[in-house]
Amino acid sequence: MYRSHTCGELRESHINSSVTLAGWVQKSRDKGFMIWVDLRDRYGITQLIFDEERTSKDLIEKTRLLGREFVIQVQGTVIERASKNPKIPTGSIEILVSNFTILNSSLTPPFTIEDETDGGDDIRMKYRYLDIRRKPVRENLIFRHQVTMAVRNYLSGKEFIEVETPYLIKSTPEGARDFVVPSRMNEGQFYALPQSPQTFKQLLMVGGMDKYFQIVKCFRDEDLRADRQPEFTQIDCEMAFVEQEDILNIFEGLTRYLLKEIKGIEIDKFPRMTYDDAMQRYGNDKPDIRFGMEFGELNEFAKHKDFTVFNSAELVVGIAIPGGNSYSRKEIDKLIDWVRRPQVGALGMVYSRCNDDGTFKSSVDKFYDQGDLANWAKVTGAKTGDLICVLSGEINKVRAQLSALRMELADRLGLRKTNEFAPLWVLDFPLLELDEETGHYHAMHHPFTAPKPGQMELLDTDPGAVKANAYDLVLNGNEIGGGSIRIHDKQMQATMLRHLGFSAEDAKAQFGFLMDAFEYGAPPHGGLAFGLDRLVAILGGQETIRDFIAFPKNNSGRDIMIDAPAFIANDQLKELSIKLDIQK
Amino acid sequence: MYRSHTCGELRESHINSSVTLAGWVQKSRDKGFMIWVDLRDRYGITQLIFDEERTSKDLIEKTRLLGREFVIQVQGTVIERASKNPKIPTGSIEILVSNFTILNSSLTPPFTIEDETDGGDDIRMKYRYLDIRRKPVRENLIFRHQVTMAVRNYLSGKEFIEVETPYLIKSTPEGARDFVVPSRMNEGQFYALPQSPQTFKQLLMVGGMDKYFQIVKCFRDEDLRADRQPEFTQIDCEMAFVEQEDILNIFEGLTRYLLKEIKGIEIDKFPRMTYDDAMQRYGNDKPDIRFGMEFGELNEFAKHKDFTVFNSAELVVGIAIPGGNSYSRKEIDKLIDWVRRPQVGALGMVYSRCNDDGTFKSSVDKFYDQGDLANWAKVTGAKTGDLICVLSGEINKVRAQLSALRMELADRLGLRKTNEFAPLWVLDFPLLELDEETGHYHAMHHPFTAPKPGQMELLDTDPGAVKANAYDLVLNGNEIGGGSIRIHDKQMQATMLRHLGFSAEDAKAQFGFLMDAFEYGAPPHGGLAFGLDRLVAILGGQETIRDFIAFPKNNSGRDIMIDAPAFIANDQLKELSIKLDIQK
Repeated sequence: MYRSHTCGELRESHINSSVTLAGWVQKSRDKGFMIWVDLRDRYGITQLIFDEERTSKDLIEKTRLLGREFVIQVQGTVIERASKNPKIPTGSIEILVSNFTILNSSLTPPFTIEDETDGGDDIRMKYRYLDIRRKPVRENLIFRHQVTMAVRNYLSGKEFIEVETPYLIKSTPEGARDFVVPSRMNEGQFYALPQSPQTFKQLLMVGGMDKYFQIVKCFRDEDLRADRQPEFTQIDCEMAFVEQEDILNIFEGLTRYLLKEIKGIEIDKFPRMTYDDAMQRYGNDKPDIRFGMEFGELNEFAKHKDFTVFNSAELVVGIAIPGGNSYSRKEIDKLIDWVRRPQVGALGMVYSRCNDDGTFKSSVDKFYDQGDLANWAKVTGAKTGDLICVLSGEINKVRAQLSALRMELADRLGLRKTNEFAPLWVLDFPLLELDEETGHYHAMHHPFTAPKPGQMELLDTDPGAVKANAYDLVLNGNEIGGGSIRIHDKQMQATMLRHLGFSAEDAKAQFGFLMDAFEYGAPPHGGLAFGLDRLVAILGGQETIRDFIAFPKNNSGRDIMIDAPAFIANDQLKELSIKLDIQK
Repeated sequence: MYRSHTCGELRESHINSSVTLAGWVQKSRDKGFMIWVDLRDRYGITQLIFDEERTSKDLIEKTRLLGREFVIQVQGTVIERASKNPKIPTGSIEILVSNFTILNSSLTPPFTIEDETDGGDDIRMKYRYLDIRRKPVRENLIFRHQVTMAVRNYLSGKEFIEVETPYLIKSTPEGARDFVVPSRMNEGQFYALPQSPQTFKQLLMVGGMDKYFQIVKCFRDEDLRADRQPEFTQIDCEMAFVEQEDILNIFEGLTRYLLKEIKGIEIDKFPRMTYDDAMQRYGNDKPDIRFGMEFGELNEFAKHKDFTVFNSAELVVGIAIPGGNSYSRKEIDKLIDWVRRPQVGALGMVYSRCNDDGTFKSSVDKFYDQGDLANWAKVTGAKTGDLICVLSGEINKVRAQLSALRMELADRLGLRKTNEFAPLWVLDFPLLELDEETGHYHAMHHPFTAPKPGQMELLDTDPGAVKANAYDLVLNGNEIGGGSIRIHDKQMQATMLRHLGFSAEDAKAQFGFLMDAFEYGAPPHGGLAFGLDRLVAILGGQETIRDFIAFPKNNSGRDIMIDAPAFIANDQLKELSIKLDIQK
């Protein structure tokens, strides 16, 4: 071992001990007669001292050659510091160095290895190994480890068994695009990397494993939106002989345990809301309920006058911005510009100020009287001093637009506090979702989700109305997990696949093994998967998952540190029986 | 929840309780006036009873329709059994059923769901979900979970941090063949799946993570030998500021902890042996030391006579088979046939019987007298009643042949006891290994392994003689882990890659990121990886890893349950900018 202690370990009780430390030179201060060097490792920083009285001339000269990030091994004695630093745990002591060895030198790093760095994203990713030396990044990775250990201990304690499912599986046309892997030994054939272990965990239930979990990498070849990764990690779970309530209870328990263990926060029963309610009250199936600003639907009080914009709209809906009456006309105009940005897509915004004297002043005073506006205030919950913002249009679009505005304003008003945690179950998701482009329905969760009992018949007549025992766990406006009760009957699964547009032949080719399994005594089962990257980020009080992944990829799916993907040798292609087919 | 208790839970203390159970019909016995049904789940088996006196006629009729592996939910009362079964934990009670529901029916399974099954390997793999219902398979998977939990808890307690490294990385020509993944977004380029997280864990050390571990899937596109899988799991570890001794201590501690926690076996200090010693004494770098039968080198006592076979041999070497003098001539002939099989490859075998009267009777009495044979007995440690088997030839070949014979005989003699555990460190592996075919040296461990201090110079003059701080942990004749101290100096890494035949250009293209990292203050570091599949199998007292993998692949790398790999759609190929190139 290159050290007797770590750089985070020594205290006053160690004074007069001879110690050996090893680590990186964080910085040095040279006062001529005295040099201080901060030595850093994963565990902390310890101050080294060299001075003319007690240190040999040679050693002092050698110390002057040390650059930032040099790796050294140091022998010395722990002494009490003249001026203590109460900010760090080792701040009461320092090491009077008797000798040191340079274990490795360092070029000057391309950015500063400090909590706040001068390095931009690209350079930090290229030199990720240096970025990881920075305390915030390192602490994020350690935090992630603590969360996964807590998850495993909790679930294992509840008799869940972690089972590893395969990574080299079969491509399925359903859902997102698969990454595929050519098989050398099976010419012309391909494995696929799993988008999730969905079918395997269901087979484990058929196999009687009863309670399964796995913390597992999953893969999706999607065009990357901001903060998406082509490979991501799930906490994947499945249980047999359960109903929705059992699953909610177990994973509410897990989440409560994590909040308590990791954050020291106790939360009692998590609130629940149906999907329909969430859409109506927040315009969003993952509402952030750390703050109010609930939607008020205004059709009744907005479509009875001559304002054709509202009269022609499917839905008129508003929110009250707390204290928003203080906004200047210019500020409100900016807000209107904001909702008209293509990313939001509203055509305009109507507003009504709630004056201190109880009167209202709206942008549509021509059409609406004080009584009408009082009703708006009542429905949106607006109080004196607030600003009511009203959007209108096609129901799904206007809800999404107003939800975007609600989140934006909450951010601006500081209502999304990173140390506050508001979990929420959203229940009763629709089974199917209409693809506006193709006019076809596809599974909202996945094709293995069971419709609610008795609703199977609706599939033929009103597919969009069928609800599923499908649920999401939402935390602070982020979906951190979702799941459903699964189909466990071959006939029902076949019917479902037919409704999703699979021919009997395709269904058999793709999912035959699962439907076969259902013929040999499949138990009722259901489950849930948490997105670990996002869960960890949110528990860590942040929203960017990349900061909690050791070696993330950029938005083109590239790892710019190792420069992957890359071209491969022709011999490799030949062995795999493939060749490039690049479109000029 | 479909049940109030599991099928392994009820005891005499529950008598008179009303309970609800759910599970599979293991079997039923119909005595006419009485029917017993064994209900099974993951946790055990509970006996259900239906009889004419206490059960309704309708229910009895319904019970007669139950087939094997039907899934049912049962309501009833716990009663005391008339004839108790002390072999199972629930054997004192049974359930007097008041009602039950069939949750799912089952076709007759293609093999029996019993500890000993009538299903062959292929059918068991095709219906793996049914195989998993069998207790031995299920227990293996649960055992694997227990081992991984223990590993994680131990390492986490020693301040190791589990860090997830990426699965979509870059192909390197070194070592085994990579599985590759075409990138849609980076036309013509490929990711590779990791053969191990080697470079990433080293970068984590450069990044100051200090102690890293990960239980992680790795991938090798090799022609599959028996009991190899294209995807396998490693316990992967790395530590900074350590020497070989520190690494051995930590992982000896882990292994000792597992043996204690999982098997209840306490083993003190693990013995250590150099690679050279292991080859000389056992002809094998992973000797099984649960038993003796050490090699005796006989050149001195076998090459001084006129027996040209021995005289022309590089090495004459023998072992003593305990009690082998009892073998008939015919049995010995069979043994000779065995060593002459192409899989072993010896040209012949000389033997010497150690008679009860202290005399010897050998197959080469024409050449060797009693004094010579007495020396053979002395060197091989043969006792009265033993049989000395002697092979000769080229040193490496003859050692491998005799090692195969040693293991075969130990198996036959029952010396390889599954409940005995004999760990062994094998140290001082050669840095390089000569590829007989190409005449080139390649890295025995991997190209990042450091030569022993001061041996770098030997690389130019006698590369085969250079030793590394590389070590394997051997358990019962299986390598369960291996590692090394790594190079942490850019110059030394460049020299090593040059010696391995990389041009400066190739070295930069493949490993430039690692060598760049070494310029920014890389600490001394080293590590180790355990093969989890094998470790679990051996701790489980078995040697076939497939029995400890939920969904293994066959020897053609196929998953015959899901029928993967498979052909994919032309659209998929097109999107990936590749096309098939099948050789007719």
